[in-house]
Amino acid sequence: MDLKIVLVEPLYQGNVGSVTRAMKNFGFSDLVLVNPCKLSDEAKAMSSHARDLLENAKRVSSLDEAIADCSIIIGTTGIAGSRFDLHLRVPGYSPKEMKERLSGLEGKVAVLFGREDNGFTREELKKCDLIMTIPTSEVYPVMNLSHAVAVVLYEFSDIKSAQAPLADSRDMRILYEHFAELLDAIDYPEHKKEKTNLMLKRIFGRSCLLSREVHTLHGIFRKIQRKSGNNYEDENTDCEN
Amino acid sequence: MDLKIVLVEPLYQGNVGSVTRAMKNFGFSDLVLVNPCKLSDEAKAMSSHARDLLENAKRVSSLDEAIADCSIIIGTTGIAGSRFDLHLRVPGYSPKEMKERLSGLEGKVAVLFGREDNGFTREELKKCDLIMTIPTSEVYPVMNLSHAVAVVLYEFSDIKSAQAPLADSRDMRILYEHFAELLDAIDYPEHKKEKTNLMLKRIFGRSCLLSREVHTLHGIFRKIQRKSGNNYEDENTDCEN
Repeated sequence: MDLKIVLVEPLYQGNVGSVTRAMKNFGFSDLVLVNPCKLSDEAKAMSSHARDLLENAKRVSSLDEAIADCSIIIGTTGIAGSRFDLHLRVPGYSPKEMKERLSGLEGKVAVLFGREDNGFTREELKKCDLIMTIPTSEVYPVMNLSHAVAVVLYEFSDIKSAQAPLADSRDMRILYEHFAELLDAIDYPEHKKEKTNLMLKRIFGRSCLLSREVHTLHGIFRKIQRKSGNNYEDENTDCEN
Repeated sequence: MDLKIVLVEPLYQGNVGSVTRAMKNFGFSDLVLVNPCKLSDEAKAMSSHARDLLENAKRVSSLDEAIADCSIIIGTTGIAGSRFDLHLRVPGYSPKEMKERLSGLEGKVAVLFGREDNGFTREELKKCDLIMTIPTSEVYPVMNLSHAVAVVLYEFSDIKSAQAPLADSRDMRILYEHFAELLDAIDYPEHKKEKTNLMLKRIFGRSCLLSREVHTLHGIFRKIQRKSGNNYEDENTDCEN
């Protein structure tokens, strides 16, 4: 599995160093840091023999830049199933469930970890296709960042990837844009559009769409737009499957 | 499982603090320290909200004392299958295998973790009934002590991930029937319907739809049917989400 670890605005350099050690322990090396804290001696000390990963980590200034080349974006959160953000956070798969879900797929997967204090913003969560939550005690559910990475990578270290090519990130973005247009075409209630767009992203994100499925979905969407009375071109490529 | 964590002569207080945090995260509290290093501010800082475990940890001066009341002694080692110590270290079960092995048994189990630098002595290993090894990269197999504890306790913990209410089979059948009607309404090519219905079933099947997502999808389908020029009732319950 082509896996990329993304730390979003990590606050403590010791944690970043520890994360690189855990990554190297489980055979992963692709690390991207979004606006990280200063990394100096403590990060190096905690990285131990994974200093090379620390030095090679890519630094970017936005999450979009970090995930641009990924087919599936997984957000790791300790707060699953908040009743206030149903579509944002539910359902949160355990690392074991997520592993089963990813098995047999081919493509680049980003696993995101949020800030040590405040996790992810709503906007960041919206960018995730799937939400993962490590099952923890209700008494003290907040894990140390590097512990969470270690547990996830322990579980993911032997994922068997294979044949089925995932739709890439650009295909998925275009599909979601097309669905938003479709909601316009069918006069979907304005105030429900945001929630419904997010719901579809969650549904399709969870199913890890393949390229040819995306192609067929576009065909269906175009047919719907056409029948809805707007003058969309009905290309020959419609409804291929 | 009645599980006791035993750290044998831990060298770094930060690790001991981190171990207590991981233990509390996964709902374990029984910690015994054999001749530990001095535990002061750094240990407290790393324990975070698991300070109680740190303060209640039992300190003993010998491994025998630590494991006296335990039925099964598991030694965790990063160096499995050393050719010099075959009987001592082999076979090393993975945490997953070990969990299966312990399932259904009743009794107190001690899980031992050795020194950060030199692990266990031969004499200590001889006291173990079972050896456990976390599968790691050959390039860098030496894990941080608290990472190893976190991974083992993640595997041994019986905490279940929160389950969102899934749509039942009747709901799903009705949804697929509705989708088939929708394909009729948009004049979807007859010869492609069977394949496309099956594709949708696969996509939605993989995403394990929730009840309320099914409800919202019906709303979208009804809107589409309505806009497609057929006289479907547009109920008030449409497009709920």
